[in-house]
Amino acid sequence: MSQAIPKWEPITGDLATPLGFRAAAVAAGIKKTRDALDLALIFSDSPATTAAGVFTTNRVAAAPVLLSRQNLVESRGRCRAIVVNSGNANACTGREGLHTAEETARVTAELFGIEPSQVLVASTGVIGVPLSADLILLQLPHLKESLSRENAGAVAHAILTTDTVPKTCVVRSEARGKTVHIAGIAKGAGMIHPHMATMLSFITTDVSMGERMLHNLLIAAVGDSFNRLTVDGDTSTNDTVLALASGLSEITVIPGNDSHAWFSEGLTLVCQTLARMIARDGEGASRLVTVEVVGARTPLDADRVARAIANSPLVKTALAGADPNWGRILCAAGYSGAKFDPSKVDVSVNNLPLCRNGVDAGFDEAAAHRDFDQKEILLQVDLHAGSATGRVWTCDFTRDYIDINASYRS
Amino acid sequence: MSQAIPKWEPITGDLATPLGFRAAAVAAGIKKTRDALDLALIFSDSPATTAAGVFTTNRVAAAPVLLSRQNLVESRGRCRAIVVNSGNANACTGREGLHTAEETARVTAELFGIEPSQVLVASTGVIGVPLSADLILLQLPHLKESLSRENAGAVAHAILTTDTVPKTCVVRSEARGKTVHIAGIAKGAGMIHPHMATMLSFITTDVSMGERMLHNLLIAAVGDSFNRLTVDGDTSTNDTVLALASGLSEITVIPGNDSHAWFSEGLTLVCQTLARMIARDGEGASRLVTVEVVGARTPLDADRVARAIANSPLVKTALAGADPNWGRILCAAGYSGAKFDPSKVDVSVNNLPLCRNGVDAGFDEAAAHRDFDQKEILLQVDLHAGSATGRVWTCDFTRDYIDINASYRS
Repeated sequence: MSQAIPKWEPITGDLATPLGFRAAAVAAGIKKTRDALDLALIFSDSPATTAAGVFTTNRVAAAPVLLSRQNLVESRGRCRAIVVNSGNANACTGREGLHTAEETARVTAELFGIEPSQVLVASTGVIGVPLSADLILLQLPHLKESLSRENAGAVAHAILTTDTVPKTCVVRSEARGKTVHIAGIAKGAGMIHPHMATMLSFITTDVSMGERMLHNLLIAAVGDSFNRLTVDGDTSTNDTVLALASGLSEITVIPGNDSHAWFSEGLTLVCQTLARMIARDGEGASRLVTVEVVGARTPLDADRVARAIANSPLVKTALAGADPNWGRILCAAGYSGAKFDPSKVDVSVNNLPLCRNGVDAGFDEAAAHRDFDQKEILLQVDLHAGSATGRVWTCDFTRDYIDINASYRS
Repeated sequence: MSQAIPKWEPITGDLATPLGFRAAAVAAGIKKTRDALDLALIFSDSPATTAAGVFTTNRVAAAPVLLSRQNLVESRGRCRAIVVNSGNANACTGREGLHTAEETARVTAELFGIEPSQVLVASTGVIGVPLSADLILLQLPHLKESLSRENAGAVAHAILTTDTVPKTCVVRSEARGKTVHIAGIAKGAGMIHPHMATMLSFITTDVSMGERMLHNLLIAAVGDSFNRLTVDGDTSTNDTVLALASGLSEITVIPGNDSHAWFSEGLTLVCQTLARMIARDGEGASRLVTVEVVGARTPLDADRVARAIANSPLVKTALAGADPNWGRILCAAGYSGAKFDPSKVDVSVNNLPLCRNGVDAGFDEAAAHRDFDQKEILLQVDLHAGSATGRVWTCDFTRDYIDINASYRS
């Protein structure tokens, strides 16, 4: 690796770029919509593949979360396959649900001649409805036959639930004359909260690295991306971010080396890009909102204020109406638990000051409304209490969110 | 007081029953709607009146909250007048806002020949818009002239913002041959959260008691009523509960005596009745929901689970759709922070089991839908982890909440 850390650049178009990965998706009849893709397989051809995962912190964790956590430990991060379904979360399904997840791993392992613990499973969809193992098991041979480097787009489709668009991101970088890729897909539209909520993301890369380092880098990247995302404050039973590194680019990431910072940057870029895509596609959302807090006493205070604002239903409904209701922003900061002097706070939207020293900045109402009535909004809050900063992504809260969620099961 | 503690019974009809209190309301032009009542005065004729208050925990507290807190301390709980306006919260209004609150207290005190610190002020409405002192001061002489025991209903109207109905409750009890009353009015529909949020409540009684005891009993009653209420998870800048005791019934409440438990029961009854009225009238709400948690390891765990469920947008939108989506209830319990075994949890609605031992109880979907499609719903969660219980009131989350809040300022 040269002294100047190589840059990462996004690739559009061809998604299946990391060497060694193939994927397939199929309509297995788990979703109610006929012929909707709802089951997918991602496989790494390289026996040297390392794997890492980050999961929901919800005490009520779905069967696939319980099994994948266990398999990462049992295989010592040597997982090579991911089986994911949408349309049914396989959560609150008891022993039967765990059996379905286990059978999925067992049959997949048999097909590829690997250990069952080398298979990771993930599910998303309705909670509390039994998931038939047969629906999945019958499709596994077919999925194996259909594996191809060109199927990442289909997999991105197959994991969607209330999302309106698939979310994919691929970046590449050059190192020592070799090209390295990091690719990610994600889903998630409601039940999105700091601790990842109903979101799934699968990341593949062709760098080579130890599973422990992959795990640490994944935790850091998730902390700076998916964990800074909130749609509705609900933390799901199924959140899963999995990363597989095939090593086939012949570039190895080594601790205490520039390569570490270099890969971390690429991984964080992919995760942040996907996180912003999720916020933009939040259930019923019409705007992507970045809440940026500066001048906080501590990073924790900055975080608390940013999250309180991003989670406030009153702020989010005002955003839906493009209403420059800065009082609600200040109010949310006030109950966040952070320490600051309300009479020193500044609030602005897209750099237009709304509130200065805790009172109305005398802004032009029509101009402010225009600034709020955008697809992307930057809300900035300066607490003037220190130098710490924090940032969270969210979306507005519209009637469509209610409509989507009032009858999700039916 | 006899050995059997006397009962409290609700009174309907005549609201102005506690002896010594008179009130008046007027349309002062603070609200945008022409001729809407928006300014009110409550006055206690008895110089022996004691007063207590409980206020928002929001760091961004409105000017009237700051002043009323201070006046209760300065007057040593000897306040006799309350001036309240709706249509403008006088929050985030800086020094000017504090000046308006102070002038209101000063002029009111002059009119009645009492100290400025004996006047309490409260405001509710839009945040961050200057509140003209003149609009209030000009009306004060007129309000004083209009004082009457028959005006409590008008005052209950004058404090409303997005509420659709006034909220009043009067109870009476007989003690030692005397009749004692506790009367309460309240407002609050959005920004309602455990720590009282945008709610105002004013309670009057004709018992006699020390201001410290009144304060302690008020804190306890609020803790068991308004603080168990959540509409949208937002904690407002203006929450205020004030209680005035005139003493004119000639019944004195004494510590370490049955009278203490007796009065506490009546006060809690009034507060709980008003709290339920607020939940039922939550912004856009179509149902009053009681979340009852039993079998928790500790009272704190019971509370956490009840609040997580009551605050979950996904639970609340499912409630709006009368969708028996018990998985979301279990999911919210899972991220509440409480300790329990998900495979032991039971969930029921109006005593119909939805989930048993963490999985589907095999309920009849149509019957469950009917149970959810009621004006009042009881959600019960048994954690089977101990014997502690907890209860929270909330409402469902409908499109109307979004509509009301997307354009509140305009």
